[in-house]
Amino acid sequence: MRRVAVAGVGLTPVREHWEASHRDLFAEAALKAFDEAGTDEIDALYVSNMGSAILQRQLHLGAMMADALGKRGIAALRVEAASASGGVAFHEAVGAVASGRYGCVLAVGVEKMSDVLPEEVASATSMSEDQEYTAYTGVTNAGLSAIIHRHYMDRFNVGAEEIAMFAVRGHEHAVGSPHAQYPFKVSIERVLASPMEADPIHVLECSGVGDGAAAVLLRPADEVEDGVEVASTAVATGIYNLTGRPDILVFDAVREAADRALGASGVSREDIDVLEVHDDTTICGILALEDLGFVEKGKGASFVASGGTAREGDFPTNTFGGLKARGNPLGATGLYQIAEVAVQLRGGAGPCQVNGAEVGMAQSAGGLGSTCAVAILRRC
Amino acid sequence: MRRVAVAGVGLTPVREHWEASHRDLFAEAALKAFDEAGTDEIDALYVSNMGSAILQRQLHLGAMMADALGKRGIAALRVEAASASGGVAFHEAVGAVASGRYGCVLAVGVEKMSDVLPEEVASATSMSEDQEYTAYTGVTNAGLSAIIHRHYMDRFNVGAEEIAMFAVRGHEHAVGSPHAQYPFKVSIERVLASPMEADPIHVLECSGVGDGAAAVLLRPADEVEDGVEVASTAVATGIYNLTGRPDILVFDAVREAADRALGASGVSREDIDVLEVHDDTTICGILALEDLGFVEKGKGASFVASGGTAREGDFPTNTFGGLKARGNPLGATGLYQIAEVAVQLRGGAGPCQVNGAEVGMAQSAGGLGSTCAVAILRRC
Repeated sequence: MRRVAVAGVGLTPVREHWEASHRDLFAEAALKAFDEAGTDEIDALYVSNMGSAILQRQLHLGAMMADALGKRGIAALRVEAASASGGVAFHEAVGAVASGRYGCVLAVGVEKMSDVLPEEVASATSMSEDQEYTAYTGVTNAGLSAIIHRHYMDRFNVGAEEIAMFAVRGHEHAVGSPHAQYPFKVSIERVLASPMEADPIHVLECSGVGDGAAAVLLRPADEVEDGVEVASTAVATGIYNLTGRPDILVFDAVREAADRALGASGVSREDIDVLEVHDDTTICGILALEDLGFVEKGKGASFVASGGTAREGDFPTNTFGGLKARGNPLGATGLYQIAEVAVQLRGGAGPCQVNGAEVGMAQSAGGLGSTCAVAILRRC
Repeated sequence: MRRVAVAGVGLTPVREHWEASHRDLFAEAALKAFDEAGTDEIDALYVSNMGSAILQRQLHLGAMMADALGKRGIAALRVEAASASGGVAFHEAVGAVASGRYGCVLAVGVEKMSDVLPEEVASATSMSEDQEYTAYTGVTNAGLSAIIHRHYMDRFNVGAEEIAMFAVRGHEHAVGSPHAQYPFKVSIERVLASPMEADPIHVLECSGVGDGAAAVLLRPADEVEDGVEVASTAVATGIYNLTGRPDILVFDAVREAADRALGASGVSREDIDVLEVHDDTTICGILALEDLGFVEKGKGASFVASGGTAREGDFPTNTFGGLKARGNPLGATGLYQIAEVAVQLRGGAGPCQVNGAEVGMAQSAGGLGSTCAVAILRRC
């Protein structure tokens, strides 16, 4: 297996892009990645997307998007693993270059959520959960998160304020980011005064609805100068339904994927300078910090509140705002995270820069953590 | 890249399975493949599926199906490339074993079409085509095929009877198949007397609606005795919309994928003893024979009519009935084809056996041929 590097990335701002189709967003991100990489000679395209069958009544995005780029003849496919689609597609794309099957591969996540009714978005997102056992009840993903959130507060005697600080940190970090959906500070008072999305989770503790596309172009590392290499990637699954888990405060798939990725890379947690975690709600961000092994179970919220995830903290986390403030265009989110880590390691993060960042990790979750993808990148 | 072998396959009959969910069908196929292979120690699961977001309101099949097998912790994902999903998932799974990333990988295609209204099935299948340029008009896939069919008849002066013979051959081959949806002969008169699906295509020239799951378990070839190895696989895309193609009677992606797969395997067309092609309509089966290079453009229909694709013909094709008679459960179909080739090469096809089959090819198409996956298998 040869070493693989990120040759270029391209991000659209996460917004309600009323004037652009998902094809437009895809193309914008892809062309930016081509520009950065100085090549458009790709052999394969991995498209990550979650909801287009519902949101655009469109399948077959691989062929559609390859054609949109004029890249006829290349291999192209769509990878779907709910909101982990981007991280999983990256894992597949990295494997394809590492093995020598393809020389140059483009992975693009795209999601267009804002041109349908909110109930259709809710319907699409709830399809990450089991339709026969869970989703049919009408419970939303935030509703399931709320069960976890409440239980976490009770078991570890943690206050709403500490958990809500995850959202405050995200918004702090998003300030100055050119692609963040909500690049402004939000006070803890405002978070806690926002309406309940699913008690005890406030609206401002949930990621919003946004459109975006994120592209990452991969090449063999020996063809990329002064770049960022992929140290390792891993994908794992866990118990699918919350009701089947021995402990709903532990996401086994996150633990498993982290252990595998760290083991394969030889990187230790202490080496990680930049971390992107999947905070579709504040509590999920906190569980991710714990299950990835950066902080003890039950200590995540106080770690965040005390500044551990701040830009100057022990583990700067969600450095462009995370799902909460950068935005969460579902199938694209995992590739936003990976691209952001790459930008940090190249020193190109501007006002969001973490000084001296050499190694970074991105963690992407599908559903309530039943799929997890972890990628570790480092300067090369 | 190490050699990869098919260690086991598992097929459910293609039927209207009113009593079984897509999870049930998936599990039945997977467990059969485990039994055949003598192992269930898989590292990864590739699920191919096209329409479950519409048909079952379910996404995230990777984690869901891994859990259904009790295989928590493994990597799992869904691959989607419309009706080529199965062939594309196989290509990905083969790459993952060949590269050494995983030791043992299960690829399962599953589709459950019969528990929703016919218009929802039509809606899901039309999502393989471009919603902004084509599908929004309401044209069905059969409607698009009809344009090709009519033009083929005109340009090559071919009669309806010759094209319809593709369906007759499929039904002949399905007789005795334990998993075929329609394992009985259909006369040419009956095909041509059936109602028009989309003039000039008759209902009995189209694949029907059916449920099914097909599993293929892959391992390194040196761990499989007396088996079938994967000589090569390839995926290619072509111009997405029919209106953009210089010649609607040529599927470029099919030509490209065939050339790549043949080139990589060192196999020549003359070596192919068993061929499975994607005949969602009779004309598409005929174009596949031509674009794969088994017969000259314009000669496919007469080749079929004169027995070239019969069990004793030059290129025995669709030896368990093809999409027409075995059935076409969309995202599962590509893996049915590949499993059928493997069964033929092992000499286990019973009344459907092609004598002395040593090398086989399966061709899977997404939409009107804008994605094509080709796999070549041989005895090892």
